[in-house]
Amino acid sequence: MRNEFGTIFRLTSFGESHGAAIGGVIDGMPAGIDIDSDMIQAELDRRRPGQSAIVTNRNEKDQVRILSGIFEGKTTGTSIGFCIENENQHSNDYSNIKDTFRPSHADYTYTSKYGIRDYRGGGRSSARETAARVVAGAFAKQALSKLGITITAYTSQVGNIALDKYYKKYDLSKIEDNIVRCPDHEAAKAMIDLIADVKHRGDTVGGIISCVVKGTPVGLGEPVFSKLHASLGAAMLSINAVKGFEYGLGFDFANKFGSEVNDRFVKTENGIATASNNSGGIQGGISNGEDIFFRVAFKPVATLLQDIDTVNAQGENVVLHAKGRHDPCVLPRAVPIVEAMTAMVILDNYLLNKTVTL
Amino acid sequence: MRNEFGTIFRLTSFGESHGAAIGGVIDGMPAGIDIDSDMIQAELDRRRPGQSAIVTNRNEKDQVRILSGIFEGKTTGTSIGFCIENENQHSNDYSNIKDTFRPSHADYTYTSKYGIRDYRGGGRSSARETAARVVAGAFAKQALSKLGITITAYTSQVGNIALDKYYKKYDLSKIEDNIVRCPDHEAAKAMIDLIADVKHRGDTVGGIISCVVKGTPVGLGEPVFSKLHASLGAAMLSINAVKGFEYGLGFDFANKFGSEVNDRFVKTENGIATASNNSGGIQGGISNGEDIFFRVAFKPVATLLQDIDTVNAQGENVVLHAKGRHDPCVLPRAVPIVEAMTAMVILDNYLLNKTVTL
Amino acid sequence: MRNEFGTIFRLTSFGESHGAAIGGVIDGMPAGIDIDSDMIQAELDRRRPGQSAIVTNRNEKDQVRILSGIFEGKTTGTSIGFCIENENQHSNDYSNIKDTFRPSHADYTYTSKYGIRDYRGGGRSSARETAARVVAGAFAKQALSKLGITITAYTSQVGNIALDKYYKKYDLSKIEDNIVRCPDHEAAKAMIDLIADVKHRGDTVGGIISCVVKGTPVGLGEPVFSKLHASLGAAMLSINAVKGFEYGLGFDFANKFGSEVNDRFVKTENGIATASNNSGGIQGGISNGEDIFFRVAFKPVATLLQDIDTVNAQGENVVLHAKGRHDPCVLPRAVPIVEAMTAMVILDNYLLNKTVTL
Amino acid sequence: MRNEFGTIFRLTSFGESHGAAIGGVIDGMPAGIDIDSDMIQAELDRRRPGQSAIVTNRNEKDQVRILSGIFEGKTTGTSIGFCIENENQHSNDYSNIKDTFRPSHADYTYTSKYGIRDYRGGGRSSARETAARVVAGAFAKQALSKLGITITAYTSQVGNIALDKYYKKYDLSKIEDNIVRCPDHEAAKAMIDLIADVKHRGDTVGGIISCVVKGTPVGLGEPVFSKLHASLGAAMLSINAVKGFEYGLGFDFANKFGSEVNDRFVKTENGIATASNNSGGIQGGISNGEDIFFRVAFKPVATLLQDIDTVNAQGENVVLHAKGRHDPCVLPRAVPIVEAMTAMVILDNYLLNKTVTL
Repeated sequence: MRNEFGTIFRLTSFGESHGAAIGGVIDGMPAGIDIDSDMIQAELDRRRPGQSAIVTNRNEKDQVRILSGIFEGKTTGTSIGFCIENENQHSNDYSNIKDTFRPSHADYTYTSKYGIRDYRGGGRSSARETAARVVAGAFAKQALSKLGITITAYTSQVGNIALDKYYKKYDLSKIEDNIVRCPDHEAAKAMIDLIADVKHRGDTVGGIISCVVKGTPVGLGEPVFSKLHASLGAAMLSINAVKGFEYGLGFDFANKFGSEVNDRFVKTENGIATASNNSGGIQGGISNGEDIFFRVAFKPVATLLQDIDTVNAQGENVVLHAKGRHDPCVLPRAVPIVEAMTAMVILDNYLLNKTVTL
Repeated sequence: MRNEFGTIFRLTSFGESHGAAIGGVIDGMPAGIDIDSDMIQAELDRRRPGQSAIVTNRNEKDQVRILSGIFEGKTTGTSIGFCIENENQHSNDYSNIKDTFRPSHADYTYTSKYGIRDYRGGGRSSARETAARVVAGAFAKQALSKLGITITAYTSQVGNIALDKYYKKYDLSKIEDNIVRCPDHEAAKAMIDLIADVKHRGDTVGGIISCVVKGTPVGLGEPVFSKLHASLGAAMLSINAVKGFEYGLGFDFANKFGSEVNDRFVKTENGIATASNNSGGIQGGISNGEDIFFRVAFKPVATLLQDIDTVNAQGENVVLHAKGRHDPCVLPRAVPIVEAMTAMVILDNYLLNKTVTL
Repeated sequence: MRNEFGTIFRLTSFGESHGAAIGGVIDGMPAGIDIDSDMIQAELDRRRPGQSAIVTNRNEKDQVRILSGIFEGKTTGTSIGFCIENENQHSNDYSNIKDTFRPSHADYTYTSKYGIRDYRGGGRSSARETAARVVAGAFAKQALSKLGITITAYTSQVGNIALDKYYKKYDLSKIEDNIVRCPDHEAAKAMIDLIADVKHRGDTVGGIISCVVKGTPVGLGEPVFSKLHASLGAAMLSINAVKGFEYGLGFDFANKFGSEVNDRFVKTENGIATASNNSGGIQGGISNGEDIFFRVAFKPVATLLQDIDTVNAQGENVVLHAKGRHDPCVLPRAVPIVEAMTAMVILDNYLLNKTVTL
Repeated sequence: MRNEFGTIFRLTSFGESHGAAIGGVIDGMPAGIDIDSDMIQAELDRRRPGQSAIVTNRNEKDQVRILSGIFEGKTTGTSIGFCIENENQHSNDYSNIKDTFRPSHADYTYTSKYGIRDYRGGGRSSARETAARVVAGAFAKQALSKLGITITAYTSQVGNIALDKYYKKYDLSKIEDNIVRCPDHEAAKAMIDLIADVKHRGDTVGGIISCVVKGTPVGLGEPVFSKLHASLGAAMLSINAVKGFEYGLGFDFANKFGSEVNDRFVKTENGIATASNNSGGIQGGISNGEDIFFRVAFKPVATLLQDIDTVNAQGENVVLHAKGRHDPCVLPRAVPIVEAMTAMVILDNYLLNKTVTL
């Protein structure tokens, strides 16, 4: 519920930005899967702060330590504990927000809800917790790869620079070729320049990440309340700074007639496919074997390195000047997080789907 | 999971479009709440087929029968069973789709997943199941009204006719004044005309529903995976035909700078508020006491009353001419469903929030 | 949680003793199973009041109506709604306990917890809710029978009359030959006489039900918290009037040395078995392929048809003379309930076990 | 489910006997509770191996490290990660059981279920995982102590030496005065002698732990499936080596008449109480304010330091001579585990009970 995600494949995570460590427990990882721990660390490195000029300067190795659940290189089917020590904390940077509520942050809501908050670096509300998601996602990806399922996310918009073509028009193998993780080289360059400019001004900027899942078998997703896209949507909306989710044509469906957008079935060599894929690979909440495609909107990071008018816990007007090290744009580092959450949802639904028949 | 929604306040539902009855069990309804059963029926009437010229002709009374959990007019804290008999079924209308997969429907995915499907009227994949959600939502609304929390949804777009102002610019008390449930009288008229035209052509059209929650206390929503908006998003995306969800500025955040959109805190007579509400009433996944505001995109109904090329279970090309009675646009009837799902999420989070302190 | 049982195969139930109806929703029933509805009714008839001279006189047909989830005689994988109308209510029998707390009943605890209670016939705390369990158990049994798994419970003790031999010494096919459901003919006769005598005196008596599961494959049950016997124990302890659970040697283990009771592994034609079965078919929380064997202790029914000193809601001393129709001993009617709960646990664990590998 | 316990207050644990570390995540711990970390370590020390002459010689400090969820000495309401490094492993002791199934252990069932097992020290099936339970239980106890709720378990039987009096006849403050944790000094001495003798012979012995919960308010426990005693029973049965659970009179109820054992209500200064407490403090599944009292049966430890006939993975007969360091009797070290599991159940139900009214 609170710090737990998934039904069969399940991550329970812990950790504050400036506490001793972050980590989690992965339950329901299938037994007998060969685990490549370098791949797990590589996924963390894609999310890691300090990885390029357009992300936060906080320089943290984010070295994961796997504590259980693997024996002689294989998963045993038992729970997998892991942790990542917090190393590069500048907790003093945050003493000025001890009693002050930063705009569009969780300071006020956490304090109201719990009566107490670890104000250092946002505490539990910091996006630092997403490192645990990346670890769990890396395990899920390794299981999915045995099934021929691959997940690829990319930055499709930063501020006013947006990719305008269907995902099939891009070479998704080029995503890691630039630091903003955009498959279009020209757009990537413009995005990087924009983020650099924004960073220089102490401002931040929003954007959109797109994600494609290939190789999903027909039948994943549950009817009614746990439709596959509802689970994907909940997964994406649980990532810090996400404000919207759409799949297939998404919001563009609103201005369409049924006769324009229905996905006609056609015969193929291997069975049945759809001629178009406006549905985004999911029909009636269940995967239909086509590519699953969705988009996730991120707001600009709330922390500005500018003077900010706000109020403190006593309700007094104060001017806040944020210190600390912050991302001017979360998109580049959020790409692996989107993939990780997707991998967890797909694997969970794959396992659930095994239970619909005897 | 599958046919169940919520953590503490929880609906488990059942029923196929052309089976004996639909219904459900509501668990976790707080004890001691006075229940107005006329209000429950009135909510169902807002969702009922045959209610106006722009919805399906299927004429069904949708009379709910409460079977337990109420004693002398009050909830007892025990589970509330209810059912609605199916009456006006024309199951023969569906014999032609027994072995044929309708485009953009769940026929193919259900058959692949379960190896069997009740093809009459879509079976479990029919939006008829949403009547159970409306019943549960009506209970939730009655509990929330004791807390001063109100939920109002409205049609804000049908095809190319879209409301372009902020929700506060509309008089939300006018929504039930027209059959499309839109607070702008002129736009409503245009939407109704568009739907009538679409219906005449045997086509369908998509749209957007907006929803506003007022009176929510600060503190609802759980950190990390069950953020309030993640639960709202999952709830909305679980409704038939929904393809997108956004809250606050939503996808518009992608093209914004942080300095433009942060919600500054200000002192008020009663405490603390935000000067703007781009966050949509939720910060760090937790309600901040401002209005919660979100938008839900619906695709056009998949069933067209036109000749359709598709394939059958044997993979042969066939031409399908749908019979049955269908909605040209789901928006008018989906308004109470959006409200019902919202009510369930808010009440569930209200109850969960009681457990964060001793 | 509250009115819900199981993880994958899950029953959510509703209904008060003297309300309109009782029933439930079964979720997670595997698709494609042929359903024999006569068998379901037959199971209910084994639990039904008024079935013999040694049970309550309340005469209720307990006719179940299946409302969804079955199509052309087979399960569809969607949720199964069902209800049983309450018919033979003498609610007036209970007006005298409206404000009075019957000893060893749930009157006082329900009133304290919820601030309100449906006092007619015990309301939700009545064992009448177990009829819903029997329906769900009958579905589970039909799935399990496809897997060659059978479940047999029997009355092994009533008051001071106890079977003293290992279950293999009895012919379990004889259980339904007598109204107390005991496989030993002589003991059965003594038990029946004892219950008749107890009934005559307006008193009640406790006892023990034993249960054997045959044909379970190796591997059912989850490590650590959801050990198979922990789930069976919780299932049994959730039945009204149950006060104890033990499996294998159970409490007798306390006075044993390891060298006396370890179950040695031996080779068999088909693989590996244990020479003895003190473990009761479960080792480390996981079924080992041997018969699963456990015992369930029931207290005497709390309702005596005698004058009872107690207090009322105002804390005043009162003398209560219970009316209504009550069982002098629950054991005969509890046998099918024990089987039903067992069937649900075993099927749930069978389905869960499918998810431990890809 | 698998490695997770509780609904609102929830422990998810991980770790193998001879892996890197064991630990877990506690979710749902109420915010704002002062935490005494010495008390947590003291509870672990009560469970720790090597603590006395009658337990295993494995000498492990079991030093817990809290990684999150505490700020300035108080719980923050966020998840609490913790781990305990494994230090004193003699993994080589187990190479002889790599391919051999120890009788009455989980070796065979784990291998069958998962296709792989970490055989070193029993891996995940080792009772070493219970250290994580003790940590979570220590947190729960600290919350409960604010509510005036205390939990006390004690050894009431070892082999043929059994306490024969009602728990009120013993001075429960004397439990920690002897190494077997029995409140009767004479019996304790006999138990210690028996265990020493059993250890000397390379044998093991079973026993019973009793537990008393004082100060529970009326109203804890959920109706129907999650009755308070069903949750307590599941908790106890999930502890390694537990084979039976009973509460109140338990199995003794089987041979009683209702007229002998009903608990009559009486007026007290503060309200209502029961004159006797055969119900064990729970009626209708809900606490009634009296002491909660239950008993837990443990089998003898399966590992004997004797030659054992068994079979290996190839089905061949082999003679096994266990090495390693083992407990001749788990009872002394299981007392804090029983208390910990009880504390988790009671706190979880306390928090759940807050949600039954608005």
